[in-house]
Amino acid sequence: MSTDRLIDAILQKKNPTVLGLDPQPSHLPPEFLQEAAEEYGETLEALAIAAVRVNEVLIDALHDIVPAVKLQLACYEQLGPAGMVVFAETAELAKAHGLYVIADGKRGDIGSTSEAYSAAYLGGVQFGDKFLTVYDTDALTVNPYLGSDNLEPFIKDCERHDKMLFVLCKTSNPSSREVQELPAGDRVLYKVIAEQISRAGAKLVGSYGYSAIGIVAGATQPSAMRVLRERHPGLFFLVPGYGAQGGNAEDIAYSFDKYGRGAIVNNSRGITCAWQKSGDPLPDAARRAAIDMRNDLQKHIIMV
Amino acid sequence: MSTDRLIDAILQKKNPTVLGLDPQPSHLPPEFLQEAAEEYGETLEALAIAAVRVNEVLIDALHDIVPAVKLQLACYEQLGPAGMVVFAETAELAKAHGLYVIADGKRGDIGSTSEAYSAAYLGGVQFGDKFLTVYDTDALTVNPYLGSDNLEPFIKDCERHDKMLFVLCKTSNPSSREVQELPAGDRVLYKVIAEQISRAGAKLVGSYGYSAIGIVAGATQPSAMRVLRERHPGLFFLVPGYGAQGGNAEDIAYSFDKYGRGAIVNNSRGITCAWQKSGDPLPDAARRAAIDMRNDLQKHIIMV
Repeated sequence: MSTDRLIDAILQKKNPTVLGLDPQPSHLPPEFLQEAAEEYGETLEALAIAAVRVNEVLIDALHDIVPAVKLQLACYEQLGPAGMVVFAETAELAKAHGLYVIADGKRGDIGSTSEAYSAAYLGGVQFGDKFLTVYDTDALTVNPYLGSDNLEPFIKDCERHDKMLFVLCKTSNPSSREVQELPAGDRVLYKVIAEQISRAGAKLVGSYGYSAIGIVAGATQPSAMRVLRERHPGLFFLVPGYGAQGGNAEDIAYSFDKYGRGAIVNNSRGITCAWQKSGDPLPDAARRAAIDMRNDLQKHIIMV
Repeated sequence: MSTDRLIDAILQKKNPTVLGLDPQPSHLPPEFLQEAAEEYGETLEALAIAAVRVNEVLIDALHDIVPAVKLQLACYEQLGPAGMVVFAETAELAKAHGLYVIADGKRGDIGSTSEAYSAAYLGGVQFGDKFLTVYDTDALTVNPYLGSDNLEPFIKDCERHDKMLFVLCKTSNPSSREVQELPAGDRVLYKVIAEQISRAGAKLVGSYGYSAIGIVAGATQPSAMRVLRERHPGLFFLVPGYGAQGGNAEDIAYSFDKYGRGAIVNNSRGITCAWQKSGDPLPDAARRAAIDMRNDLQKHIIMV
């Protein structure tokens, strides 16, 4: 069961961190950009080459510390088709290093279209006798606005191909409340969404008690995390917002159960852009930042 | 103003139809699949080749009838990086034939990530002195679940680069009501979303009185369309659900104002898969179906 694999990986490294590999051109070290521009000119292909080289350095430097990576699809899409090659290569390299790979796409559409998104990231495409894997990732983030027939194709592929799903519930951005905290009957919207997801994932619970259908619950919302954790013991949380967005380890501890399980905390810029602050080379700065984050989380979350 | 360009194109062809180019492998004519498989084997690349050839035939057969095309990103994404090349080539070919191009991605994320999605489809990426266009489309569909800081980067690019946005409001799928019709205070959620979008787009109104920030309002929800049209005269509607999903022209007429403006109606399979029912060659069957749909809409919508 995919959720068990993720939890095992976290426990083995005693680190519930997911490394966000989001190659925004403006966040890539200048020497990588210069080198690529000299080879390919100031083109999207050059940005893609710089991105994949940076990702290679980061995976090499961090694979023994972090259990998982999260690839923000927007950052790859904005580099054109070459960016999707980088996405595929990064996912493959991360898997080869034993890392769990989350595609962060926040996809969602009517049922027949969700099938196509699910085929891209969780399942595959049938062509004659062949079943073709497109992007070999372990999990995908999705958006709940279209309701259950949007989610079903993804859930089916989670069952069939042993994958995970993280459905947006309470996100980390300031304006999330404008929609997610609207009163929905006697509760607020994100709590209704959490109920819906909890029910939808009840049949896919692994041996640690967590479902393959988890949620996104932002680190900037400690009271929301606390309520959701208490009410939905089977929902695994993907927690964005640590560091740059203001979430801290003490608050994030609410996302975890008494065994120190049940969540994984994303950090992108805090690790991948640590070179900007320290002046150290990319791999050294990233490794230092990843170890600091692990130690910070370990202070507040006791994993057994 | 981008909205004016779309409305002009509709009025010129007296046809508020947007042709959905959604190359699902199972919906492509077998002869295209066979030919591609002979050349490239049973691979994603072969599916991509078949998809682009089908799109070329459809654009060639229909560009004098329909004013716009909508490309469902999921269908291109599931063909891997080669699928995104097909997406780019199809968008380019459609533009070269004077068609308005809508990228249907239903994207949405926290602000900094939405910037990257917006760069991919509406704006571009800065690299040194160069501003690089990624996919040259006229409009993008987005998801409202993350609130206004998600929408802002897209709206900025609409203003800066003369583009349009269609925000999901009331979708055409059966389970849309599970979330979109939840009571939100004294109204239901999709009406609150419509208010938010209406306010956000108020500064980008074109000469026909329609904003560059429109909504998706499904043809399967006639009462919703009617209420939204009355309450929000400045919101332009992208209307999915005609034909295959059950929406008919009489109901859809509620999406239009008294001048027969204010909406565009999508049809994908009803046109692109018409060969399955009629047995005619792809271009002939598609052309017949597109003309039938135009005539059907013209019966109920008087465009002046």
